[in-house]
Amino acid sequence: MSREQINVGVVGFGTVGVGAVRLLETNADWIAQRVGSRVNVKVVVDLEWDREREYTVRKDQQFTDMKAVLDDPEIDIVIEAIGGIRAARTAVSEALKHRKSVVTPNKELIAKHGAELLNLASEANVDLMFEGAVGGGIPIIRPMKESLAGDCIQRIVGIVNGTTNYILTAMTQEGRDFGEVLADAQALGYAEADPTADVEGFDAMYKIAILASIAYGTHIDVNKIYHEGITNITAADIKYAKQLGYEIKLLAIGARGNGALDLRVHPAFVPLGHPLASVHGVFNAVFVQGEPVGDLMFYGRGAGSGPTGSAVVGDVIDCARNINKGASGRVPCRCYLDLPIQPMDAVETRFYLRTRVKDQPGVIGKMATILGEHGVSLTSIFQPQHEDTGGAEIVWITHVVQEAKVQAALRALKDIDVVDEIASVIRVEG
Amino acid sequence: MSREQINVGVVGFGTVGVGAVRLLETNADWIAQRVGSRVNVKVVVDLEWDREREYTVRKDQQFTDMKAVLDDPEIDIVIEAIGGIRAARTAVSEALKHRKSVVTPNKELIAKHGAELLNLASEANVDLMFEGAVGGGIPIIRPMKESLAGDCIQRIVGIVNGTTNYILTAMTQEGRDFGEVLADAQALGYAEADPTADVEGFDAMYKIAILASIAYGTHIDVNKIYHEGITNITAADIKYAKQLGYEIKLLAIGARGNGALDLRVHPAFVPLGHPLASVHGVFNAVFVQGEPVGDLMFYGRGAGSGPTGSAVVGDVIDCARNINKGASGRVPCRCYLDLPIQPMDAVETRFYLRTRVKDQPGVIGKMATILGEHGVSLTSIFQPQHEDTGGAEIVWITHVVQEAKVQAALRALKDIDVVDEIASVIRVEG
Repeated sequence: MSREQINVGVVGFGTVGVGAVRLLETNADWIAQRVGSRVNVKVVVDLEWDREREYTVRKDQQFTDMKAVLDDPEIDIVIEAIGGIRAARTAVSEALKHRKSVVTPNKELIAKHGAELLNLASEANVDLMFEGAVGGGIPIIRPMKESLAGDCIQRIVGIVNGTTNYILTAMTQEGRDFGEVLADAQALGYAEADPTADVEGFDAMYKIAILASIAYGTHIDVNKIYHEGITNITAADIKYAKQLGYEIKLLAIGARGNGALDLRVHPAFVPLGHPLASVHGVFNAVFVQGEPVGDLMFYGRGAGSGPTGSAVVGDVIDCARNINKGASGRVPCRCYLDLPIQPMDAVETRFYLRTRVKDQPGVIGKMATILGEHGVSLTSIFQPQHEDTGGAEIVWITHVVQEAKVQAALRALKDIDVVDEIASVIRVEG
Repeated sequence: MSREQINVGVVGFGTVGVGAVRLLETNADWIAQRVGSRVNVKVVVDLEWDREREYTVRKDQQFTDMKAVLDDPEIDIVIEAIGGIRAARTAVSEALKHRKSVVTPNKELIAKHGAELLNLASEANVDLMFEGAVGGGIPIIRPMKESLAGDCIQRIVGIVNGTTNYILTAMTQEGRDFGEVLADAQALGYAEADPTADVEGFDAMYKIAILASIAYGTHIDVNKIYHEGITNITAADIKYAKQLGYEIKLLAIGARGNGALDLRVHPAFVPLGHPLASVHGVFNAVFVQGEPVGDLMFYGRGAGSGPTGSAVVGDVIDCARNINKGASGRVPCRCYLDLPIQPMDAVETRFYLRTRVKDQPGVIGKMATILGEHGVSLTSIFQPQHEDTGGAEIVWITHVVQEAKVQAALRALKDIDVVDEIASVIRVEG
């Protein structure tokens, strides 16, 4: 039998909290009809109630102490919208211990402490859901856990960070360099004042850890994931990518390797025909290859009050339906394995290499010989027109080759006198 | 408490039945770990057990009478993989009456008899799931019913028929006419010997009826949906579309109109920058606009044994999880409304018009005047180079205008002597 009312407590009333509460209250009738119970926002906890927000709640819903949620036995579901780790971890674990289902879009929290928190949820026989943690409003966690639960997932490649995709898109469309575009993005609010988490790939690393954990049924130590950001991508690389038929994207990759997971975050050349190449601006997309489902892509807005609010409310509705059926914990965590992560040296992919060299005959021959001696074979060599003085550039695209071999070849190339600089090393995927 | 084993009966062992059974048996250990019970294919019913199949089952699983499923109290879940309407409707309703959960990817059955069958499921307190009915392996039904349950969906635009998308893609890439490409598609097995259901838009019509019904919470009479196929699309239209920056796609549209639903299936010009324009070959995609989630797209393989098998097995796992929690019927049908469908005359969109006219001065002026008098304003007029003798062609793209006005203008144009023929009328969307 459905309850007449299911009560929600919200902890943190910033962008995400506001997005979720506004949606729950604005579409309350529609949601009630879908759940079979009214979903009521009973308590919202935040320290600051004076500041201006796009939407706010009645005085009787406003609290400043988390106890207002934990100690209220009528609250069934808690939305964690604090962000960060310390306070959020306490809030989520306390809520679970108080036998309340929890919804959080906090990717760092789930990537780092998901196992511990999912255990608490299981012990308390409640739900812990986190659809908003990856891809904002894009339904991806639920499809992975439910729709694709029978498939053998082979590979996940995601554009899962909107800030870096916005920056790379602007660099591609406007031919400008990273620093300039970042400054603009900061001015427009698309990048944080401290952009490290986005531009150095940490955010994408948390997200691929979560997706890979679900897809491959394994625990993942997020600290072991290789991650490289986009701060070294230059206008020159973007220009050459275009000329060669690629776009540069920050990819988060999680694939089955040889008995180990191939898990990494780095910028990559993506061929223009690939569905991911047409994901522009702040949009996110997750490309999934499974057996027998084949290729899938999930595309949408990866952040923001509205999209993340949508994901949080979808989870709240799921929790509420479980409560009404006494079915909390219906889709438990099944990440029992402990698959190793392939060391970066063992990863096999293609490479784009941009080298600055002395402008003299025989350079290509010398360099190609060294590459060949290290087992690096080439699909194309490209010598762009000079645009400045003092040397030439040569661009190389390799066949699929082990990372260790390329790194060894690059060390050898640096030692010969015709090579001034290895200016860029960017992987080629897709 | 999870059961040790959950038993499945399969009715119909063609492409879809084989895909589902092969996946359930091949990945049995993985699925058992996810469900908490072994999911066992106990009975498979088919009339022909002699014919060659890509995968088959043991003799003790082979039956020819549906009674083997209905009368076996150990069978919890039934997969309907017969196809068509008559036998499938009987099989599904009998299984539901016997209190077995049912999974079917049968779009025609769900579009035409979904309401009646979902009522039976509700009365029996079991599940009726049909993820495979739209978009093959693409998770779209579950995201719509669960992840987006709180959103207000504004518009759904789908490329939901792989056969027509294959034909249009080949026409676009190879510059050939419909008839030739259809013959090739039939030879390759991408089109049926009788291609009517695909090329005339019936298949897409069933699918948009299902999606719109879920998105807008309404009953839909599938017979009231306007549908127009791709048989009249010519190589010339495709060529002009390209020149103007569009691709022609068969779209299934379901949008909120003014107090009525805007529901229709027809070919349309889609601008090259739109995510749907890059969906090629047999791939399907569903583009969804919701508030507050924004734009989403779900992309993947829309048909075939593997993808549809994946969708069916995802549903079987969902049913099994519900059985283990006593939570069958957890996400019931909520299509209670009876929203009217907007008459086609009232639909507002843009149009591409291709006209054959006398090659003499003043023609554009006369025609533009008539269009203007009927309230049809223009964004561009384009006179292609002649490629044959005996007249000229003029291509017109309109602003957004009501269908009725365009039709009236076209009737008036046909009556003037400089116009030989209204060669094509194709809507412009996106």
